[in-house]
Amino acid sequence: MNYHARVRAARGLMARRGIDAMVLSVGSDLPYFTGYVAMPLERLTMLVLPVAGTAVLIVPKLEAPRVVEIPDLFDVRPWGETERPVSIIAGLLKDAYRIAIGDQTWSTFLLQLQEQLPSGMFVQASPLTSELRMRKDSDEIEMLRRAGAAADRVVARLARTRFSGRTERELSRQIAEWLIAEGHETVDFAIVGSGPNGASPHHEASDRVIEVGDSVVCDFGGSLGGYWSDTTRMFVVDHPPEGFEEPFRVLRLAQAAAVDAVRPGATAASIDAVARGAIVEAGYGEYFIHRTGHGIGTDVHEHPYIVEGNETVLEPGMTFSIEPGIYLPNRFGMRIEDIVAVTADGVERLNTSPRDLVTVG
Amino acid sequence: MNYHARVRAARGLMARRGIDAMVLSVGSDLPYFTGYVAMPLERLTMLVLPVAGTAVLIVPKLEAPRVVEIPDLFDVRPWGETERPVSIIAGLLKDAYRIAIGDQTWSTFLLQLQEQLPSGMFVQASPLTSELRMRKDSDEIEMLRRAGAAADRVVARLARTRFSGRTERELSRQIAEWLIAEGHETVDFAIVGSGPNGASPHHEASDRVIEVGDSVVCDFGGSLGGYWSDTTRMFVVDHPPEGFEEPFRVLRLAQAAAVDAVRPGATAASIDAVARGAIVEAGYGEYFIHRTGHGIGTDVHEHPYIVEGNETVLEPGMTFSIEPGIYLPNRFGMRIEDIVAVTADGVERLNTSPRDLVTVG
Repeated sequence: MNYHARVRAARGLMARRGIDAMVLSVGSDLPYFTGYVAMPLERLTMLVLPVAGTAVLIVPKLEAPRVVEIPDLFDVRPWGETERPVSIIAGLLKDAYRIAIGDQTWSTFLLQLQEQLPSGMFVQASPLTSELRMRKDSDEIEMLRRAGAAADRVVARLARTRFSGRTERELSRQIAEWLIAEGHETVDFAIVGSGPNGASPHHEASDRVIEVGDSVVCDFGGSLGGYWSDTTRMFVVDHPPEGFEEPFRVLRLAQAAAVDAVRPGATAASIDAVARGAIVEAGYGEYFIHRTGHGIGTDVHEHPYIVEGNETVLEPGMTFSIEPGIYLPNRFGMRIEDIVAVTADGVERLNTSPRDLVTVG
Repeated sequence: MNYHARVRAARGLMARRGIDAMVLSVGSDLPYFTGYVAMPLERLTMLVLPVAGTAVLIVPKLEAPRVVEIPDLFDVRPWGETERPVSIIAGLLKDAYRIAIGDQTWSTFLLQLQEQLPSGMFVQASPLTSELRMRKDSDEIEMLRRAGAAADRVVARLARTRFSGRTERELSRQIAEWLIAEGHETVDFAIVGSGPNGASPHHEASDRVIEVGDSVVCDFGGSLGGYWSDTTRMFVVDHPPEGFEEPFRVLRLAQAAAVDAVRPGATAASIDAVARGAIVEAGYGEYFIHRTGHGIGTDVHEHPYIVEGNETVLEPGMTFSIEPGIYLPNRFGMRIEDIVAVTADGVERLNTSPRDLVTVG
């Protein structure tokens, strides 16, 4: 990755927006600019990136050996167990007024920085960092393509798997194993929502035994080379439950129409409107209880969000999920999810497994 | 768990300290008081707990089915995808002045709350929540005892394992599998630092092949029933490297002395001083580059920290690690770690596997 170019671009944006310094800690912004992942611990790790001058990575002394230094990108300042890292950072920020702070930075550190820098004006870093991170370069899209292909191979394995008689938990664990076997380094969720459980979009796998006649939502993902996969496919055991096929047909067409609507110049909200419109028109609007999608990259959820009100204009290199769903309480739920990339003149699906209902044993 | 008693105790502390409301999101405070774990996502989950009156859990609509409601503990307010949850929370806090916010809450939400509540005074919640969470009840200590015993069984398995010829990564994966097999639901770290890699305290497992004559730091943990294990033992392959035995003898005695010093009335700093004193006296002070320990419970690192300057007085029910180490750059490192609980008149070790050097093949 060209970290120098990224930092240069960030500084350009900072200068245009009157940001004197950016401070980044846990979350994906720090690795995006430096390759270094901060441990989510009470021991503070933070990059201080002034609009001009030397960037400094403040890191606990015992993490310092893990830092891969990059010439001319940042200096490293290890702090010992009896030092106050916030004071070191406040010292580096003493001439900064507008300071952008990484979204996921722990509040405890923001409060301490605000106390030490009472005239500092802290703002969210994401309007700035997402501006850069939203537009993936070809290497990043290739990483997402690989992650998507690995997830698709798990879908293919699932299609050859017996579901009936197994618990959701067993199947979830199986999916996790396959994600690793197909090259993922982390598995972060493997939702298996069978029968009525599928009506809770974020249902966690339970001890419910999957039966003949159940529909099953399988939604899983993790990271591969630091980039995320996230796909959802629908399975039925032997045959669909009563009343399933009609809404599924609606969902299938709504999802495809939303994918087809993706192109440079369309807004994020307009893609949501396409999926939602088709579902509302068929009379299932009240059962589609979430947004249509979320950006994806080094975070599983990032900008752009495909949601009503988001007038972000799509550009080549943006990557996000298209995942409408219909949830009928106490009966079943359904969702179809692909990751897509905006291309120069349209869209590329990064999940290419069939989106039709899969019948399993 | 008696959530009602915990909330009552929190409100008593809030009243005494002039805190009008507490807001809790990601991290262990929220589950401690409600049993509910917030997803670490851009969709905000937050408990608003006023010093008096009804507590409200603000939760994304699609997570709402996962909330286990507890009568008279909190109301649930699901928010839809086009609502602004921060505005709902600001509305609930409009009469509050001093507001304690959970330490790990994302800065992006704190900044938005500060903007909507310009006269609100936000402070860290941890001085308040740690006051309660630091003192474990007998059920909690039993959970930690179980987690510790499971980790000890992994140590026993390791002692019967061949190390030589395997990579650190293979061994780390093996430890992770065994932690799960022994009852853990998550594995969060499995450090294997062989030879010179052991000199980096937080070394991650690498592709280095472990050889005869290596020393190996194995430090691993995860959660079991929501409570953490964390133990470190030292292994040598066939024989210790040159110059290893003398500092190991020092470390072994320093760690045991620090454990023996734990009792009600001693300070956290005094325990650090015991371990550090013994190591300094033997001439290895500059190679003991971290604090002696950290509290443990539903977080792997929590209060009390066993570090110079922490004058917290130990009380029965406090649980923490005792883990001094000696790190000789480019040669090897060593650490011995037990979790201990302060009892009515002394200390109980929650890791009881032998602390001596283990020779493996």
